[in-house]
Amino acid sequence: MDDTKANRTAQNLTPPHFMLPEGDYRKLTAPESVALLGVTRRTGKGSNNPLEVLLEWGYRGKIYPVNIAGGEILGYPAYTSLLDAPEVPDLAVICSPRDTVPEFFRQCAEKGVRIVIIVAQGFTDGDGDGVAMHNEIMKLAGEKGIRIIGPNTLGVVNNFNSFCTSFMRFINPLAPVGILGQSGIYVVGNAGLMGGTGLCIDTGNTADVEYAELIGHMARDPKLSVINIYMEGVRDGARFMEAARDAVAHKPVVIFKIGSSPAGALAAGSHTGSMTGEDRIYEAAFRQSGLIRAATTDDVMDLNRTFQTFKGIGGNRIGVMTISGGAGINAVDAFARCGLQVAELSEETRNTIAELSPGWFRVHNPIDVWPAAMKYGYPEVYRRTLAAMMNDPGVDAVVCVTGSFLEKEKDFLDVTGILHAAAAEHPEKPIVAWTYGGRWLEYIAELEKEKNVVAFSSLDRAAASLAALYRYGHIFQPRAVKFLTESSSSIPRLSLPAAQKEGERLIAASSPGFMSQERALALLEAYGLAGARREKAENAEAAVAAAERIGYPVVLKISSPDIIHKSDVGGIRLNIPNADALKKACEEMLASAGKQCPMARLEGFLVQEHLNGGTELLLGCKRDSQFGPVIAFGSGGVFTEIYADIALRIPPLDRDEILAMIDETKVSRILKGYRNVPAADISGLVKAIQSFSALVTDFPTIQEVDINPLLAQPERLVVLDARIRLG
Amino acid sequence: MDDTKANRTAQNLTPPHFMLPEGDYRKLTAPESVALLGVTRRTGKGSNNPLEVLLEWGYRGKIYPVNIAGGEILGYPAYTSLLDAPEVPDLAVICSPRDTVPEFFRQCAEKGVRIVIIVAQGFTDGDGDGVAMHNEIMKLAGEKGIRIIGPNTLGVVNNFNSFCTSFMRFINPLAPVGILGQSGIYVVGNAGLMGGTGLCIDTGNTADVEYAELIGHMARDPKLSVINIYMEGVRDGARFMEAARDAVAHKPVVIFKIGSSPAGALAAGSHTGSMTGEDRIYEAAFRQSGLIRAATTDDVMDLNRTFQTFKGIGGNRIGVMTISGGAGINAVDAFARCGLQVAELSEETRNTIAELSPGWFRVHNPIDVWPAAMKYGYPEVYRRTLAAMMNDPGVDAVVCVTGSFLEKEKDFLDVTGILHAAAAEHPEKPIVAWTYGGRWLEYIAELEKEKNVVAFSSLDRAAASLAALYRYGHIFQPRAVKFLTESSSSIPRLSLPAAQKEGERLIAASSPGFMSQERALALLEAYGLAGARREKAENAEAAVAAAERIGYPVVLKISSPDIIHKSDVGGIRLNIPNADALKKACEEMLASAGKQCPMARLEGFLVQEHLNGGTELLLGCKRDSQFGPVIAFGSGGVFTEIYADIALRIPPLDRDEILAMIDETKVSRILKGYRNVPAADISGLVKAIQSFSALVTDFPTIQEVDINPLLAQPERLVVLDARIRLG
Repeated sequence: MDDTKANRTAQNLTPPHFMLPEGDYRKLTAPESVALLGVTRRTGKGSNNPLEVLLEWGYRGKIYPVNIAGGEILGYPAYTSLLDAPEVPDLAVICSPRDTVPEFFRQCAEKGVRIVIIVAQGFTDGDGDGVAMHNEIMKLAGEKGIRIIGPNTLGVVNNFNSFCTSFMRFINPLAPVGILGQSGIYVVGNAGLMGGTGLCIDTGNTADVEYAELIGHMARDPKLSVINIYMEGVRDGARFMEAARDAVAHKPVVIFKIGSSPAGALAAGSHTGSMTGEDRIYEAAFRQSGLIRAATTDDVMDLNRTFQTFKGIGGNRIGVMTISGGAGINAVDAFARCGLQVAELSEETRNTIAELSPGWFRVHNPIDVWPAAMKYGYPEVYRRTLAAMMNDPGVDAVVCVTGSFLEKEKDFLDVTGILHAAAAEHPEKPIVAWTYGGRWLEYIAELEKEKNVVAFSSLDRAAASLAALYRYGHIFQPRAVKFLTESSSSIPRLSLPAAQKEGERLIAASSPGFMSQERALALLEAYGLAGARREKAENAEAAVAAAERIGYPVVLKISSPDIIHKSDVGGIRLNIPNADALKKACEEMLASAGKQCPMARLEGFLVQEHLNGGTELLLGCKRDSQFGPVIAFGSGGVFTEIYADIALRIPPLDRDEILAMIDETKVSRILKGYRNVPAADISGLVKAIQSFSALVTDFPTIQEVDINPLLAQPERLVVLDARIRLG
Repeated sequence: MDDTKANRTAQNLTPPHFMLPEGDYRKLTAPESVALLGVTRRTGKGSNNPLEVLLEWGYRGKIYPVNIAGGEILGYPAYTSLLDAPEVPDLAVICSPRDTVPEFFRQCAEKGVRIVIIVAQGFTDGDGDGVAMHNEIMKLAGEKGIRIIGPNTLGVVNNFNSFCTSFMRFINPLAPVGILGQSGIYVVGNAGLMGGTGLCIDTGNTADVEYAELIGHMARDPKLSVINIYMEGVRDGARFMEAARDAVAHKPVVIFKIGSSPAGALAAGSHTGSMTGEDRIYEAAFRQSGLIRAATTDDVMDLNRTFQTFKGIGGNRIGVMTISGGAGINAVDAFARCGLQVAELSEETRNTIAELSPGWFRVHNPIDVWPAAMKYGYPEVYRRTLAAMMNDPGVDAVVCVTGSFLEKEKDFLDVTGILHAAAAEHPEKPIVAWTYGGRWLEYIAELEKEKNVVAFSSLDRAAASLAALYRYGHIFQPRAVKFLTESSSSIPRLSLPAAQKEGERLIAASSPGFMSQERALALLEAYGLAGARREKAENAEAAVAAAERIGYPVVLKISSPDIIHKSDVGGIRLNIPNADALKKACEEMLASAGKQCPMARLEGFLVQEHLNGGTELLLGCKRDSQFGPVIAFGSGGVFTEIYADIALRIPPLDRDEILAMIDETKVSRILKGYRNVPAADISGLVKAIQSFSALVTDFPTIQEVDINPLLAQPERLVVLDARIRLG
């Protein structure tokens, strides 16, 4: 895919302004000198000596060990203080236990070190002493402009220049893989999970330097072909999304996020002190940024092999060759689950296969080669069928089902060479394989030996990996490029000065907490989200007078700053046909609300036009501590929480994103016209969501908005009820 | 779990009456003599000679090869016809190409063989000639009482007596695994997928003998500890469910069903000619029977290792030991996804761990052993922490996160021996492991060497496997035993003679197709499902008169045998307050229906009481060609298809099953009382579903019933609209 328009455009993107300066990044990942503060004197098996690892790696820069006892470690003189070192090292690694860290950090500050890695754990993830030490260090770092990686980290592994700060040894193959992690798993486990690494940075508890500052460098590194993120949480969601989009414009980014369950998030909080946040919000952020989310570490393994092996895929039409009809069906099921198409084979391909097969054989994709193999011999049939598929312009990739149920020396079904040759001839067309049998692990290794075929333990994993390849190349990357290059035109920073001014007035007049409904509706109206015709009425007589002006039928609502869920206390009555009924409703409502909420201040009623027909929607916003305002759209009404038909997005939103948000909900099928319900005004809805997004962005004091129901009629969008909470 | 009450009760269960007779089963799986009809003369690599495989397996029974050319094959004299063989073989295997099968089958019939395996493909899965041959063979089989396995099968593998009918060789370890398949994948692939097999039967296209006749034998075989099914589809769903429940009462049954997607089902149809059917219905059948569904072949591998290794699990409270905080969080996330609990550790356990750990360490499950390991050495800490957890009565199983990122000779983190020892000491408490690092495959093999620990490629797979172990032992097996032993009392065959008689009358009076609404409502009323108060009215005047009797407000509906979706043509008007409005509504409705359905016969109106409040439900039934009547329950109303909040079940249903069905829907939260909606009468609803189930079981001519909405009010359940289609 290196020649795509998206790739060419990505080359010219301006890096995010917050990216770590080039010099600092170089000092962190490829320092010319490194100090190891508090390095142990123990060496050998189980000693966890980072100097030993560094030497074993073959680092060629200068090393300054610091150990209060001085002496010599592994042939290097150890300084008793960093201040004694002959120069300011590019990088300092404090690798001693927690309680000694503040003193070593002070030495770094005094010496003038710019980048410090802190290895120990037990700071914000520990007790009160740990938190105090953390605060002391952060304060000094702020004063001196020192950047910190960690604490609770293994630091950096750079296999392109033999540099490593980990105290743990690990199997260390070189691979074109960038890794950003908040856990040692991705450092020491990279050989198993990603097949190796080129450059790996573990930010641990991420007290200071975070992903957003680093990922742009990896994205622009031509030696890397895929980037991995192991995330517990981010501090600044907006910055992360901007950095992620920029990275996705260059390279596929696979993200594995832990703390997705409430219990897991709790555990993560105690682990690194990071805020793991609501998973649904992270999910929205990842989706909007085009990150490829791995649900499990199995996915991580699959996606890394896939993106390292294939440059791309032409489309999502997949051919299947199988030696078992059942496996072919399994493949088709797997395609359906992840959005791949069963390729329609060309007439030429079908003829080739028909010639090889018995007369009764029905030629269609998936192709079961077994009947033909009984006639012409297995390898010959496999080779010719695969060639036909690879040459078929209607096939974008081929899934090969192969058997590994015979011992190697007896294996007349071995087609590894056939797959390698076909893959070498057509590097633009991925070949992936599933194999089953007692020799499958060995057979997978053989299939992947030439690094041009990827083999999986199930057809579902094979399909999911091809689908990820397709989505990255055809959806995520182009979309990220488009967003970044066209954002100034396609996402106009909605300039609504009059709205803003009116909003400032209404908010200034309100205290923190819930705005009065009148002000809330007025604020929404200022931003173009109109309510129903309505009037306030102090008592039943005034209500009747108002209803005469509005016209029957009407809706009656209790007016009270203290009652939030009105319908729960009998505070809403719909479709009131005339004055008598209205008077009665007023009396009953006062009695019911007074009884159920004796402490509530009752300020009278709201009389409102009763609207017939239309679809009840919800449009809401909640300010998230990491990501800022999060927009929610979906099915409204009393049961909105039960059916949970809600899509989330994080502004800024372009038209495409808003349409995608609407489409994600089930209620969108009704909005497009369903049975006797006429279609709603979708383009009016898009505009309303854009204005809403401007509103919550304009006023950071808005903590929460809940428009429910927002009634969508064919030519009108009406706010029927709304709550706004200010901070 | 062998000592559980469920197990003891299962021993005494009467086998299903349709189980293959013991003698036939023995002839199929452990024949004393076998004829190989049409066996090839070729031998050696790639020859696919079943005689060669049989000899290699070491079969000790008599073998009669039949080949029209006669002569000798591998030292055995070949008969030119089976009729020349000196005795009637227990089993005949026709292993020649399709076109020669009918002649060989006639020989079997003439000779008096009872069980025949047909290997070739191309019958109902081929062309017209294939279908004709299939019909001819089935006819002869019916006449002679011959039972057929296949066609399109590898037949039988019995590793307990060295018997095998497969023409394919394959790696063949012995394991306590029973396999029933409709594809060769499970035969030749069993070593990889299940770790081997004891007894494996491939029924191929399943023209005759099917799972239901075989599984009871495997369930009662003490040499097997887990049973696998590879399914494309079943013919007789009710029989399958009965057999499956019987099997689940004895042993865990893992089912992998292909054709779950519409495209896959289509492909399966052409593969074996079997009906794969609607996946949601199979899903309901599997769930009700207690089968453990594997979504992928990865699941198949995991579940087989799990059920072979562990006899059971005491509960679902899981302890986690980790060397990485992140992995601990990942485990907790995985538990949440599959219903496992993070175990609360006892004070004793917590104290043990606190003593080992630094002062700042917060002791809670998951336990990160790394801080302690830095102090006391890794293996010692791992051993003592694991011992504490294994002795903790609040922990039912332990997940161990282990590192495999060091080469074996340098691996001071190797804890395989520690895990083996702990598992040997506590066989009642499963230990499962995840490992990450470059040596993970080798490390997994070491962990599993003693066959008392299972290791997984991800924590999610580890958790899912423990969850399956829990669900089988604590939910599926006890429930199957209860269903089979108490069914006569807990599922009374609802005897409603009056209802049945009235139903017969109404159905006899109706033609195939949709019943008139009046008859449909009457039929439901006979079974206790009452409609709203209502009257037919020929014209507007009659409607007004009817409304006076019923009381305003009323609902008006068009009455026409030709209009099914009334609301689509303006044929329903709700909440009509008085006579004037009713007259107007009658006029408008006639005009609208006449305009939109000019060909429809308009028979007047139905006037009905308008009911305020209540929750709209759907109660329906569709007759499935495999499973018979399938009951659907869920959220009703116009948008029921959009929100698809529907649970399916297959009768007979006991009270537990109906409650589970209700709970499966989101609308059940509303029925239990939600905000200002009062709770509905759940026990009345259960009874209604029981009656409904009796209705559709009583009348096999009923193809489809759709009660929507069924209005649930606090003290009343009212059928507001219903359609019934007769066959």
